[in-house]
Amino acid sequence: MSEPTHAFEGDGRIRAVVEAVSPSVDGGRYPVKRIVGDTVVVEADCFADGHDLLAARVLWRRERDADWREASMGPIGNDRWRGSFKVEEIGRYLYTVCAWIDPFLSWRHDFERRADAEDLRIAALAGAALIDCAAARAAGGDRARLEAWATQLRSETDAAELRRIALDAELGAVAAVYPDRRFTYVFPAELALVVDREQARFSAWYEMFPRSASGEAGRHGTFRDCAARLPYIAKMGFDVLYFPPIHPIGRARRKGKNNALAASAEDVGSPWAIGSAEGGHKSVHPALGTLEEFHELVRAARGYGIEIALDIAFQCAPDHPYVKEHPQWFCRRADGSVQYAENPPKKYEDIYPFNFESDRWRELWAELESVFEFWIGQGVAAFRVDNPHTKAFPFWEWAIDKVKRKHPEAIFLSEAFTRPKVMHRLAKLGFSQSYTYFAWRNTAWEITEYFTELARGPGREYLRANLWPNTPDILTEYLQFGGRPAFMIRLVLAATLGASYGIYGPAFELAERDPRDPGSEEYRDSEKYQLRDWDLDRSDSLAHFIGRLNKARRENPALHSDWNLRFYPVDNENMICYAKTTPEGENAVLTVVNLDPYHAQSGWVELDLRALGLEAHASYQVHELLSGARYLWSGPKNYVSLDPGRAPAHIFRLRRRIRTERDFDYFL
Amino acid sequence: MSEPTHAFEGDGRIRAVVEAVSPSVDGGRYPVKRIVGDTVVVEADCFADGHDLLAARVLWRRERDADWREASMGPIGNDRWRGSFKVEEIGRYLYTVCAWIDPFLSWRHDFERRADAEDLRIAALAGAALIDCAAARAAGGDRARLEAWATQLRSETDAAELRRIALDAELGAVAAVYPDRRFTYVFPAELALVVDREQARFSAWYEMFPRSASGEAGRHGTFRDCAARLPYIAKMGFDVLYFPPIHPIGRARRKGKNNALAASAEDVGSPWAIGSAEGGHKSVHPALGTLEEFHELVRAARGYGIEIALDIAFQCAPDHPYVKEHPQWFCRRADGSVQYAENPPKKYEDIYPFNFESDRWRELWAELESVFEFWIGQGVAAFRVDNPHTKAFPFWEWAIDKVKRKHPEAIFLSEAFTRPKVMHRLAKLGFSQSYTYFAWRNTAWEITEYFTELARGPGREYLRANLWPNTPDILTEYLQFGGRPAFMIRLVLAATLGASYGIYGPAFELAERDPRDPGSEEYRDSEKYQLRDWDLDRSDSLAHFIGRLNKARRENPALHSDWNLRFYPVDNENMICYAKTTPEGENAVLTVVNLDPYHAQSGWVELDLRALGLEAHASYQVHELLSGARYLWSGPKNYVSLDPGRAPAHIFRLRRRIRTERDFDYFL
Repeated sequence: MSEPTHAFEGDGRIRAVVEAVSPSVDGGRYPVKRIVGDTVVVEADCFADGHDLLAARVLWRRERDADWREASMGPIGNDRWRGSFKVEEIGRYLYTVCAWIDPFLSWRHDFERRADAEDLRIAALAGAALIDCAAARAAGGDRARLEAWATQLRSETDAAELRRIALDAELGAVAAVYPDRRFTYVFPAELALVVDREQARFSAWYEMFPRSASGEAGRHGTFRDCAARLPYIAKMGFDVLYFPPIHPIGRARRKGKNNALAASAEDVGSPWAIGSAEGGHKSVHPALGTLEEFHELVRAARGYGIEIALDIAFQCAPDHPYVKEHPQWFCRRADGSVQYAENPPKKYEDIYPFNFESDRWRELWAELESVFEFWIGQGVAAFRVDNPHTKAFPFWEWAIDKVKRKHPEAIFLSEAFTRPKVMHRLAKLGFSQSYTYFAWRNTAWEITEYFTELARGPGREYLRANLWPNTPDILTEYLQFGGRPAFMIRLVLAATLGASYGIYGPAFELAERDPRDPGSEEYRDSEKYQLRDWDLDRSDSLAHFIGRLNKARRENPALHSDWNLRFYPVDNENMICYAKTTPEGENAVLTVVNLDPYHAQSGWVELDLRALGLEAHASYQVHELLSGARYLWSGPKNYVSLDPGRAPAHIFRLRRRIRTERDFDYFL
Repeated sequence: MSEPTHAFEGDGRIRAVVEAVSPSVDGGRYPVKRIVGDTVVVEADCFADGHDLLAARVLWRRERDADWREASMGPIGNDRWRGSFKVEEIGRYLYTVCAWIDPFLSWRHDFERRADAEDLRIAALAGAALIDCAAARAAGGDRARLEAWATQLRSETDAAELRRIALDAELGAVAAVYPDRRFTYVFPAELALVVDREQARFSAWYEMFPRSASGEAGRHGTFRDCAARLPYIAKMGFDVLYFPPIHPIGRARRKGKNNALAASAEDVGSPWAIGSAEGGHKSVHPALGTLEEFHELVRAARGYGIEIALDIAFQCAPDHPYVKEHPQWFCRRADGSVQYAENPPKKYEDIYPFNFESDRWRELWAELESVFEFWIGQGVAAFRVDNPHTKAFPFWEWAIDKVKRKHPEAIFLSEAFTRPKVMHRLAKLGFSQSYTYFAWRNTAWEITEYFTELARGPGREYLRANLWPNTPDILTEYLQFGGRPAFMIRLVLAATLGASYGIYGPAFELAERDPRDPGSEEYRDSEKYQLRDWDLDRSDSLAHFIGRLNKARRENPALHSDWNLRFYPVDNENMICYAKTTPEGENAVLTVVNLDPYHAQSGWVELDLRALGLEAHASYQVHELLSGARYLWSGPKNYVSLDPGRAPAHIFRLRRRIRTERDFDYFL
């Protein structure tokens, strides 16, 4: 056996230890995510051998800065320490934790416990030496005060007086500012942190097909038509207006209505079959308008507080210019033809995927990344990324990081409906938000399990859910069979369980629910393959209901985060009850939903009053935000009855305090 | 903002991912621990983008070897993969996991699902190309078979025949032996593994003071007296005979009987006050004998299957030679004197601790490490380390690693009764076994909580418990007040909950239970400060009981590990019931203990028959290993009654099958 050398690298005198720093994703391999203005709470196990006292600090900095900043940490029990810092800017940060055995603090701690006079005298000399060292590290007034203190400790002979001097709290605090940090242990990993703008955590998305926005049956919609639609969308209270791909659509192998294999001459094709002689991922479909008209739309939207998000789908129609210009970016079949997308026996011959194992992968990566940069140049900062789980993982990490270092405001929504580990990986790699399994979580048990995992599980450090009750690809059976109440139920769940949510409209607000085939989640006459003309003025439209819901969301900070979600029992399994509260508890919103779209349901909800900041023996007001009604409740158990035909859900703002005689001036 | 460069390091074509490799301690920073002969089960999340098929391998090697060995992994659901390898030698190993997208496996998977003839033909050509590549990686017969297969795939035109040829299982298996591993992802951490000899996991320790072994009141015992005691210890079934420090004892500030501050001339002093003019940590106390006599004892013990363990206490009496020879290894008080051990207001003036912040720390470390090497040279391979939590952590990691690289058979038992994080840290740093909080876990709830954590928690990868119902420092109140039954109860718990356990005797087997003061855990007339003469032949000695218990332990492999522990409900909270089973279930031992040393208790135990490998509707035999009695039980619920005055515990070996008519030859 070869004997390894045993040179110990480092300073063996460093006795303090830092372990288990949190938050941490895969030991710091991936960044945790926060929002600008957040207080980042960092914890670690900090301890040393023996019983000397420790000091610990959070070290943190903007990644671009050279110098660490520090935040003090304090013990919270079981050798766990906690500290925090506030992030005031978007971008990348680093943080870690350091700790050291503090000789001065240890001396003071021991001194307090010493009993006999001789012992105190000798300990005072030791303390004076430590304080002299602190003085040497200080300057000005502090230095002088410390030096004077050391002198006092050396000269005083009376034990009681010595004790008083040594334990002077004020001087002790001065000395503690200048600790002896020679033997400081620094946790070896520098943990990464990405700070996003608020919309990465709190946002309401509205998806629509611009080409269906003309308001006239049969006329292809334009960006100008979309601009005319903005007041309608703003009235519903959405922040983000998201379009499926707006690029030229391939003509080769174009799909017809309802995904028919053969298209007629009038068929408009699928926007996801990107590229034709008219251009590719950096062009706009001529029928929608010009790039300048797109800019106008972006500006007009901004006037309504709405930002435009684009769908980025990295795939090509057979006539995309890339196919001829960069044949090396695609796989070939054994007959020499370009490999179309397939999942045998299914074939998608209108779509050519990129080959991420191409020898020209660097060139391919650079071009794809430049697509994001191009659209950022056109005023877009939010991207819904189509099927990221069918593209190489390393590409996403590299590309998102590259974009965000130049444009830290960029938001990437991962549209991956796939296996849990893959969805989590994409979120770790940098996606700001992720689609979820929400659409298929219908029962109270399913919802409780899944959202407890999202709100409390370790994945919350990097995966931010964006909840969609429907998408152009997903018309769930719950919606198909549950009628208008089902849409209301799923909308309330999405908007209150999720700080971020979205709907695909106008299909959603008009409760469009005919599937292409029984058992399918595809829409009949789907806008994916044809223009649709929507009657937005229908009396049964949910637009007004959505508006009230989004207003309640905006006005209640408790609904701006997902971490503060807590479920409460209801004695009826057709109902669900949960609350969100702000960290300081000044805002609390309780939602009760009847999950049965067919029948009225009622039950007793049981709250944890303490967790909600309510007093056990006082009444409290619940203010129903959809109807405006107010009720007085008291105690943890209250009765709720919900008729899906009228209102399948209550969203209550809890008002902690109601007026009593003590509110009159003369009571004082 | 300085813009970082975005050169992607690595090959972007590597699409497979490996995450969350287990077992892993702090991301591989510390080794996991196993025993020679163990099968090491490794799991990881392995996946890639898209739906291509993956292959994954465990890579492992002895640390001293250059080449990795491989073990195949298979999926176990939710993108988790599992593989294993067997460790045949003690020492250090490394392991990690790699995965790649396997084009051949993906091709076969897709081929099976393809429908139309033209598609099959083109896919066959693609497959032939992949098989040609596999052939190029193969040699001899395999190469020829693969080449022939590719030719067949190219020439066959009939779709059905093509399908038969392409999906040939035997040829598929040949091709899978030569995978295309160009784009292999290797998990970035090489995880460390320490493999110990069996005694690190399964051992019964007997602690005694050699100086009390003379058998004559007032005569100082010797190594020869200890040798005479070996048959007695062997009959009780212990594997390890462990001695408190055997070095010369300091005379300066020596403590008297019962820890009196002043010692008389006859007082023998505490063995932990190490060192005098007669020598230090590498010397033996002259009254015990010579180093040669120690060697004789080590050899004699081996003849009884017993190994000698020594207590290593890194501290000095004031007259230890180190104090004069290496004054820099100690702290000084402000008056220039050497700093004694203290925890104000307590002073331990007979003990000088080493200063691990000394400028001469490298020299100190080297000397302390050499103490282990010295005693290994005298035939000792097991060390109980005194108070490791008051010495610098980095020292332990360095020293234990250094010793074990030369002497991988060495076992280190950490005597740290301190806070949980500190105890875990020491175990991570390399200690083979750890003292625990067992002595103070008395109720069924406490025992269930604590031992579930030890057996199932993440710490089990590195922390191996060694359970001591008593030590020279710990005479618990449970033992003080519970009489002889309490000793039996705690003994059975230690020996069956812990694969490793120990007692401090003869105090234990003679149920010595007088404390020095009420409320103290110190023994009255403790052997720490004086010689004791023990009457080993007392009729109430537990020696015989201990012998039966250790025999049951040796004969039942289920009791050789802690990972297989499972608690079962009893409807009487004064009782506890638990079982251990071997991984393959061929040995199962059920223990039921009455925790009340004063009263008979009875109750219904409720077993999970399936977990114990028993049939739901058949009777099974329970064989009581202490009394030899056998009972037939059936079903999950059975009644147990235990009288502490007679037998406070049952240890049942479960015998799955009892004879029925089917056991007669003529039944067949």
